[in-house]
Amino acid sequence: MSNHRILTLTFAVAAAVTATGPAQGAIGNEPIQPVAAAKTGNPALAELGKKLYFDTRLSKSGFISCNSCHNLSMGGTDNLKTSIGHNWNKGPINAPTVLNSSMNVAQFWDGRAKDLKAQAGGPIANPGEMASTHELAVDVLQSIPGYVSEFKTVFGSDKVTIDEVTKAIAAFEETLVTPNSRFDKWLRGDKKALNASETAGYRLFKDSGCVACHNGPAVGGNSFQKMGVVAPYKSSSPAEGRVAVTGKDADRFNFKVPTLRNVELTYPYFHDGEAATLRDAVDTMGRLQLGKKFTDGENAQIVAFLKTLTGDQPSFKLPLLPPSSDTTPHPQPFGK
Amino acid sequence: MSNHRILTLTFAVAAAVTATGPAQGAIGNEPIQPVAAAKTGNPALAELGKKLYFDTRLSKSGFISCNSCHNLSMGGTDNLKTSIGHNWNKGPINAPTVLNSSMNVAQFWDGRAKDLKAQAGGPIANPGEMASTHELAVDVLQSIPGYVSEFKTVFGSDKVTIDEVTKAIAAFEETLVTPNSRFDKWLRGDKKALNASETAGYRLFKDSGCVACHNGPAVGGNSFQKMGVVAPYKSSSPAEGRVAVTGKDADRFNFKVPTLRNVELTYPYFHDGEAATLRDAVDTMGRLQLGKKFTDGENAQIVAFLKTLTGDQPSFKLPLLPPSSDTTPHPQPFGK
Repeated sequence: MSNHRILTLTFAVAAAVTATGPAQGAIGNEPIQPVAAAKTGNPALAELGKKLYFDTRLSKSGFISCNSCHNLSMGGTDNLKTSIGHNWNKGPINAPTVLNSSMNVAQFWDGRAKDLKAQAGGPIANPGEMASTHELAVDVLQSIPGYVSEFKTVFGSDKVTIDEVTKAIAAFEETLVTPNSRFDKWLRGDKKALNASETAGYRLFKDSGCVACHNGPAVGGNSFQKMGVVAPYKSSSPAEGRVAVTGKDADRFNFKVPTLRNVELTYPYFHDGEAATLRDAVDTMGRLQLGKKFTDGENAQIVAFLKTLTGDQPSFKLPLLPPSSDTTPHPQPFGK
Repeated sequence: MSNHRILTLTFAVAAAVTATGPAQGAIGNEPIQPVAAAKTGNPALAELGKKLYFDTRLSKSGFISCNSCHNLSMGGTDNLKTSIGHNWNKGPINAPTVLNSSMNVAQFWDGRAKDLKAQAGGPIANPGEMASTHELAVDVLQSIPGYVSEFKTVFGSDKVTIDEVTKAIAAFEETLVTPNSRFDKWLRGDKKALNASETAGYRLFKDSGCVACHNGPAVGGNSFQKMGVVAPYKSSSPAEGRVAVTGKDADRFNFKVPTLRNVELTYPYFHDGEAATLRDAVDTMGRLQLGKKFTDGENAQIVAFLKTLTGDQPSFKLPLLPPSSDTTPHPQPFGK
């Protein structure tokens, strides 16, 4: 380990701890805070967004929706190493969970979208994902009477815009928080919510330095950090992280720290999905980020703690989508 | 039109009318009866089936579930001409709606599965659809503690079997009926439930002979009929219908008559999905099955009637799936 790397790590720890100190309202000075219940600012907007989130007609093929890769039956992910897109395209990166994503400092692993609204438009128009265009997506929605009237109710206009579409999807995604995990109950004073192994795991998680990056209500999501601090992370993934956004060489292999909320559900792990199990992920993180080889017992305790971060999953009725009309552009799953 | 074809048609009409006479409890001697509400014989079994219906882990890729092609947000279909399967395989035939499918005389367009249970195992192991095997699907479920305990509660055994899997999926599908359509309200005596154009459409539907095949509670689904009675149906589809099951040349291009319940939602139409709109479908059916060219006004009235067949869609919470364990076989979306 070079001196430079030790300094980088130390600095990162210090910076993160400072950023998440008492100012964030820690309970008992813990570096992790409970997840707050969703605020429902505009229920009609979020309800429209829910429909759009499940609507495969936002894709060129008519087969892929937001929920295809951020599946709300499965922890808000697809549980694949990297995602499947239009024409069975193999995506370059692991789909991050949509759960609690409103707490992220920015969206995507490299943070190229500043918020959920900016993110929502990306996959729709990505040729390797939903493969539509914003123009086509809007034309499709504009041709569907049920949507036109719902957009009018929510936005007051007969004309659907991509800005409204992404605003609605983001509003729905803001409701996708997962409060009431066992760990949050423990944080709030219910000391029986965790068993001895789980509390030992949390102590290890703090004492070993995991909390340097995985802190705050989302237990991550609030900073970019180098993947491979103590030793380089070897991957066949082409993703280079934050450098793609900033152009700064120092940001190469800097990725947004993923939230650990519901991590039991969001396997496989890392930006390349190469860690199949929590045991593997904890082992790799210990060695490459902290220069620490956890024993099997320590690893198991940390994993036990991580499984206490599973909160109440979003609970809602499967949305029913308004039917297309005779003038709706047809899906184009094959050819061209 | 040959004499043979006229005779075939006449016979088909007579046979169908006989088969669906007063014995089925017609209201006011109408050839269509209301859809009955779902019976909930074994709610725990249906609840397990619901999870399986939404579980992408029944596919080799981990990406495709029953709901992918029989999407309950979209009338129980995928609204594509033909479906997308593993590796973006282009399916040979239009996905029929799962709604009210328990009323079908048999399952699939060619009736090769005698019931929903027999059907459910097909797509899981079809290389062009979910591309798994029954063995792999069972291995996956057996590795998931949440499923093992739920199967044990429902079936009383620690060992998951494909027979149990398909039984549960079928039990869920039996709940997917759509009562309370406007037409059913009209049938039950609420004469204001339909407007003049819609009742005129129903009269045309009966008087023109559509009811010969589209009758009973499902307005179809209860017989196999030749596609192209009066004139041949031209299609690039390789599907030849019932002959694939019976081996009888007389069954070539005989397909199961699709239900018209919720037909407003189940576009595009026919076994090859080539009719994009109800207008097209009504026009083609009139010409090829009945030797009748409907005027634009008649066509519009029949379409207006057909849209009154949309019933209450299944309403339930999006199921939450139990997470995989460290020993769960990994999805294999790419390669091999």
